[in-house]
Amino acid sequence: MTQPSEKAFVPFVSVDHMMQLIHHVGLKPMLRGIADRIEADFHRWPDFDKTPRVASHSDVGVIELMPTSDGDVYGFKYVNGHPGNTKGGLQTVTAFGLLSDVATGYPVLFSEMTILTALRTAATSAFAARVLAPAGSKVMAMIGNGAQSEFQSLAMQEVVGIEEVRLYDIDPAATEKAARNLAGSGLRVVPCKTAEEAIEGAQIITTCTADKQYATILTDNMVGAGVHLNAIGGDCPGKTELAPAILHRADIFVEYPEQTRIEGEIQQLDPDHKVTELWEVVTGAAKGRTSERQITLFDSVGFAIEDFSALCYVRDAIRGTDYFTPLDMLADPDDPRDLFGMVQRAG
Amino acid sequence: MTQPSEKAFVPFVSVDHMMQLIHHVGLKPMLRGIADRIEADFHRWPDFDKTPRVASHSDVGVIELMPTSDGDVYGFKYVNGHPGNTKGGLQTVTAFGLLSDVATGYPVLFSEMTILTALRTAATSAFAARVLAPAGSKVMAMIGNGAQSEFQSLAMQEVVGIEEVRLYDIDPAATEKAARNLAGSGLRVVPCKTAEEAIEGAQIITTCTADKQYATILTDNMVGAGVHLNAIGGDCPGKTELAPAILHRADIFVEYPEQTRIEGEIQQLDPDHKVTELWEVVTGAAKGRTSERQITLFDSVGFAIEDFSALCYVRDAIRGTDYFTPLDMLADPDDPRDLFGMVQRAG
Repeated sequence: MTQPSEKAFVPFVSVDHMMQLIHHVGLKPMLRGIADRIEADFHRWPDFDKTPRVASHSDVGVIELMPTSDGDVYGFKYVNGHPGNTKGGLQTVTAFGLLSDVATGYPVLFSEMTILTALRTAATSAFAARVLAPAGSKVMAMIGNGAQSEFQSLAMQEVVGIEEVRLYDIDPAATEKAARNLAGSGLRVVPCKTAEEAIEGAQIITTCTADKQYATILTDNMVGAGVHLNAIGGDCPGKTELAPAILHRADIFVEYPEQTRIEGEIQQLDPDHKVTELWEVVTGAAKGRTSERQITLFDSVGFAIEDFSALCYVRDAIRGTDYFTPLDMLADPDDPRDLFGMVQRAG
Repeated sequence: MTQPSEKAFVPFVSVDHMMQLIHHVGLKPMLRGIADRIEADFHRWPDFDKTPRVASHSDVGVIELMPTSDGDVYGFKYVNGHPGNTKGGLQTVTAFGLLSDVATGYPVLFSEMTILTALRTAATSAFAARVLAPAGSKVMAMIGNGAQSEFQSLAMQEVVGIEEVRLYDIDPAATEKAARNLAGSGLRVVPCKTAEEAIEGAQIITTCTADKQYATILTDNMVGAGVHLNAIGGDCPGKTELAPAILHRADIFVEYPEQTRIEGEIQQLDPDHKVTELWEVVTGAAKGRTSERQITLFDSVGFAIEDFSALCYVRDAIRGTDYFTPLDMLADPDDPRDLFGMVQRAG
């Protein structure tokens, strides 16, 4: 039996490989590399096929498929969101993803994305803050100190240049964990007892909590002028973090309005409330921050193009390394019309 | 470092495993098992979340995601269709799929589906023919002798009881290949020089050709009364096989009308042309074949529930076998909120 062609084996980046790759590249350089890649892909936004993610909701969570394509490369991510999972010792979010060649439909990369999603979410926040936050922002409040919080902090340090992160979580153990993990990062880490305390002096306020419900993590009187709000946690129908009054005072920037109006903070607003697409700020077609006292809000829900960018980064980064294994995913008979003969001969 | 939990490893059925599984179970029993499973899932059709597949079209082909869920188990398939691939020695269709637990979102099976799709497509055709074909059908015409043709023939033999298959393809080499592969199957195999010759005496006519264009594989005068048409190849916009006049003479049965009206033979008809959903025939809510002289047409485009059924079959069939490997797909920190700590400690 002839050996299958190289194309029948798809490079697979396991969880262990991903962690090795991060240590090989360095977490902060990798966050910067992904942020730059995302910004470059936002710059060519009209080139992409875009569709709201395909969600399957249940009482306890959601499973989503997020596809996109730039005409040469197709990518998609599988991701779940189950806030109750942590009680059973499982991840709230797990994910994997794939790139394939549009010309043949053959996959070219299969990768874990639980860790990679954490990196791309942080990289997206940091890229958006680089575009929208007040010039010279040095202090970030991090509200919600779960699995995403350290990645957010380091990406803001690396890409935006913040020097201090102020941590708050309703669970002090989460804050302790984040503070411990960020020791030695070069950031001044300030654990706080209230959200109000965390927000003091911050130019960037990141909210990232996991409850699947309408919550009010920030009330109107907590948010002063001249800040950038980076709202990560409101990312599915019925799940928001900000008081509506804040939204009315802010200039709102989104990834893909068709998706954000369903899933983001702006699900609380009229469907025709003005929002600006972030990619238009990147290309110069729309204005970003125009004054020091302005409140900018990045109402982030996560979009397929960001996963695409992250997967492309990984595809390029593993070249010439051992951080993948070839996976026997694709049947490859000698004669492509003779799939049956291949199966028969394997007997 | 603690070892990750069992749930972090997803059973992966490679191409090689799938072939071993087929030889372990036997191809015909496996086709019957999948056909029975599909019929059982059609019987509980209303239990499933249904959505038309999510397609990304290019000039040369299509890449599709096909998700569904029964509320307990979620499944999806990735599948491409690139008719020009065979010229480069590649498969027209490659696929893989996944099952996961709705309660946690964690994947529980990851499998090759290039081979499995061939089996489920044949099993679906055979199940539909068992429901719709004339009683005592013994002869099938197989128009198009590509990768799907042998699986179709064996499934019809095993599930419907046909004794003779009459092969025709515009490329005689394809017919020779199919005839060679079917020798020893117990079927009388009759290679034919024209489609008309292949159809002589057949109660079941299966069309399965791959061109991505409106083609007329069967013209009106070729199809007499009292046959069952199993039309597989018309399965995406712009790709059909049957002359419209045949459709007007036939009673048409479909999987999921919302998808079939876009992709099936009936894209040639008015959007309100009467069709019957196959699942309703299975439950008895609608009539199938009502007379000997009737022409029944199964306008098959392939639906996510069939892939779900096939994946569930595989999930159960590999239990207690070695036909899978555990894949390190899911990050699993000791503390689920401490993804960062897990990454950090891997250094």
